Amino acid sequence: MFKKILIANRGEIALRIIRTCKEMGIRTVAVYSTADQESLHVRFADEAVCIGPPPAKDSYLNIPNIISAVEITNSDAIHPGYGFLSENAKFSAICRDHGIKFIGASPEMINAMGDKASAKETMKKAGVPTIPGSTGLIKDVEEGINVAREIGYPIILKATAGGGGRGMRIIWKDEEFQKAWDSARQEAGAAFGNDGIYLEKFVEDPRHIEIQIIGDQYGKVSHLSERDCSIQRRHQKLVEESPSPFMTEELRKKMGKAAIAGAKAVNYEGAGTIEFLVDKHQNFYFMEMNTRIQVEHPVTEEVINYDLIKEQIKVASGIPISGKNYFPGMHSIECRINAEDPFNDFRPSPGRITNFHSPGGHGVRVDTHVYSGYQIPPNYDSMIAKLITVAQTRDEAISTMERALSEFVIEGIKTTIPFHQRLMRDPNYRAGNFTTKFMESFDLSENGEE
Amino acid sequence: MFKKILIANRGEIALRIIRTCKEMGIRTVAVYSTADQESLHVRFADEAVCIGPPPAKDSYLNIPNIISAVEITNSDAIHPGYGFLSENAKFSAICRDHGIKFIGASPEMINAMGDKASAKETMKKAGVPTIPGSTGLIKDVEEGINVAREIGYPIILKATAGGGGRGMRIIWKDEEFQKAWDSARQEAGAAFGNDGIYLEKFVEDPRHIEIQIIGDQYGKVSHLSERDCSIQRRHQKLVEESPSPFMTEELRKKMGKAAIAGAKAVNYEGAGTIEFLVDKHQNFYFMEMNTRIQVEHPVTEEVINYDLIKEQIKVASGIPISGKNYFPGMHSIECRINAEDPFNDFRPSPGRITNFHSPGGHGVRVDTHVYSGYQIPPNYDSMIAKLITVAQTRDEAISTMERALSEFVIEGIKTTIPFHQRLMRDPNYRAGNFTTKFMESFDLSENGEE
Repeated sequence: MFKKILIANRGEIALRIIRTCKEMGIRTVAVYSTADQESLHVRFADEAVCIGPPPAKDSYLNIPNIISAVEITNSDAIHPGYGFLSENAKFSAICRDHGIKFIGASPEMINAMGDKASAKETMKKAGVPTIPGSTGLIKDVEEGINVAREIGYPIILKATAGGGGRGMRIIWKDEEFQKAWDSARQEAGAAFGNDGIYLEKFVEDPRHIEIQIIGDQYGKVSHLSERDCSIQRRHQKLVEESPSPFMTEELRKKMGKAAIAGAKAVNYEGAGTIEFLVDKHQNFYFMEMNTRIQVEHPVTEEVINYDLIKEQIKVASGIPISGKNYFPGMHSIECRINAEDPFNDFRPSPGRITNFHSPGGHGVRVDTHVYSGYQIPPNYDSMIAKLITVAQTRDEAISTMERALSEFVIEGIKTTIPFHQRLMRDPNYRAGNFTTKFMESFDLSENGEE
Repeated sequence: MFKKILIANRGEIALRIIRTCKEMGIRTVAVYSTADQESLHVRFADEAVCIGPPPAKDSYLNIPNIISAVEITNSDAIHPGYGFLSENAKFSAICRDHGIKFIGASPEMINAMGDKASAKETMKKAGVPTIPGSTGLIKDVEEGINVAREIGYPIILKATAGGGGRGMRIIWKDEEFQKAWDSARQEAGAAFGNDGIYLEKFVEDPRHIEIQIIGDQYGKVSHLSERDCSIQRRHQKLVEESPSPFMTEELRKKMGKAAIAGAKAVNYEGAGTIEFLVDKHQNFYFMEMNTRIQVEHPVTEEVINYDLIKEQIKVASGIPISGKNYFPGMHSIECRINAEDPFNDFRPSPGRITNFHSPGGHGVRVDTHVYSGYQIPPNYDSMIAKLITVAQTRDEAISTMERALSEFVIEGIKTTIPFHQRLMRDPNYRAGNFTTKFMESFDLSENGEE
């Protein structure tokens, strides 16, 4: 087992990883930017190394500084968390070259899954359902229109290097093609330095349901059931839950089997997530694979009593998994608490937290790196806490969430707590009746539904 | 179901009950003394009524004031928590006379179990193993010595109205009897206004293991497995856990069956706990029954995924239970965090909490009514928080507790956190190798085992 792990991240996920390392008796090294000196991840690690100033390219994305920090602290392994360098193939390769265990995917795996068009082909060959679309990249408008006619409109253009909605365009008929094509290419080129575009059938009103998997170094892969992340705004997840209210036992078995087949096809090692779109007829289609831990992993942990970070570390150190699949025994919901004004277009609200008090009691988990007096730096994403509830049933998990939200004290800044309170009261949300379009019609006016 | 419940208590247990009421959609009324105006239980209740000044006899034990608060707020029911009026037969009777549902035991039940000597006889008749001893009260030294010789020394004298160790004396031979008898009678008379004394065989080096039960209004009783509360100092529990590290499946079944038989013998309704002494040969003996919720109830909740307060309320409103027994699927530990100096004879340390930050993350639960800036009044018991961890195994629950204790920030006062940190590192504690005598030899010097 590793003796010392460096956590190449910040905020709640860095603290999350430190917590599990402590419980496993593994020493930890935090790295931090000059903007993050006061963060709890720095305070709770055994050692901490400053790796530069913001922005991230000078610190959390500064590979030489991070490798130096590993070397001066004599760490055995790096946990990259999510975001930053967690899906950076070059970083994974440099770790390998330096004999440092990267607790994440190999460079080959990251590359294979990072290129969306080739990832889709790989999954298709493994028998994972994929959305009908072009075979690889589209070379021009003429080819695009031919493919679109063959699979039927509506279709969506996507950037092969893409993410976060950039380079995506929905097209309903031939006449719209040229304009959408030009703007998608331009946007993808500007955002990713790669203007490769592929085309897919556009799945209307889908749910975003993802399967958590874990693989060991000996070819075994288990699935840990699903998370429903359909409550999104501009492709940013806001609330996640497990199990999905839309799930059936039969569909879970099918999706779990497909996820395992996909992971095995690429000899996947570590924790990963295969994201699917699911339509109202329970057809599911591979969307992408995330080769890292995800923000929403706690809901899975709570419903199957499983520490995903611990299992990541064990697998990375060469310990085999049992190979059994896990099915949810409880219901868990996570609300992302962001320093944003939900009734003013979710505008970021950095600043000093003048008063902070966590909710507690049965069925409540809080993951946060902030505290009373903490100054939220304006340099990073605005998530300041994850509030997770768990109960026997979905109704009870919602009731516990409402109760916990009402107790959560965060003063001095705006937060998304009032949004979550409104969401938890929404009849459609409560009925489990939502798709990824849900937020488009959700009332976000100041005096909304009250 | 009740529409509004008045909580006749304070501190963490009042907040605990409010939380569940909120989740059930039941309105809550807090009562508070003038010393408790700033407590969270007052802030989080829907309504709050001041019932007088400290000491407790003028407020939390002031029955007319509490009944008035019920009437002016039009509450349907009273939850008494633990301590204060929770096992007061007169109060339970007054509630009944006023048509207010008392969420606790009937006056008859409280009386039956409150008198230790008659409780023991009742249990014995129901087939529950009891400690060999006198049949009812001892009338004089001569009778006492005869009984002691018959069952064999060592024996212990106990006050029939007793609790908390008062009126108890251990006797090893005839010559010690007279002196012990005189002082036990005097102490019992002064403490309880009742100098009735009975006699039992003294069980050496026992464990304190209790069985949680719940009964409904239709005669069904379930057991919810055990808690081990052997880590005590002067009869005050410090740390509790479920399951007991000493437990076997066979012993659990036997003790569960005995607890159910005892509860059924008295037509028990509601949540209750039957406390047993267990010797090293796995013999177990009825000690007493608590006809209320207990401080340590969360460890049971965590290992069986069960909200005990919710079930208390449901049963009180007439909802039947399933009747099935529950067995621990996880391991949970609770540390009582007291405002006391553990290395100075646990001397109380009231005062202002200048900084408070709860631990969080997977497997951690915090139940507390305090916060940054809270002034701990000197009038009440010194427990300010309960820190509960849950994990797959006992070793992991201990590791999570160590991690959580290291994160818990409470500044401005002394707390028992350093004691718990030392206990969690103790090899005998870690091995599950302890009895109720454990604390007598535990190093509590300032620079103890480090």
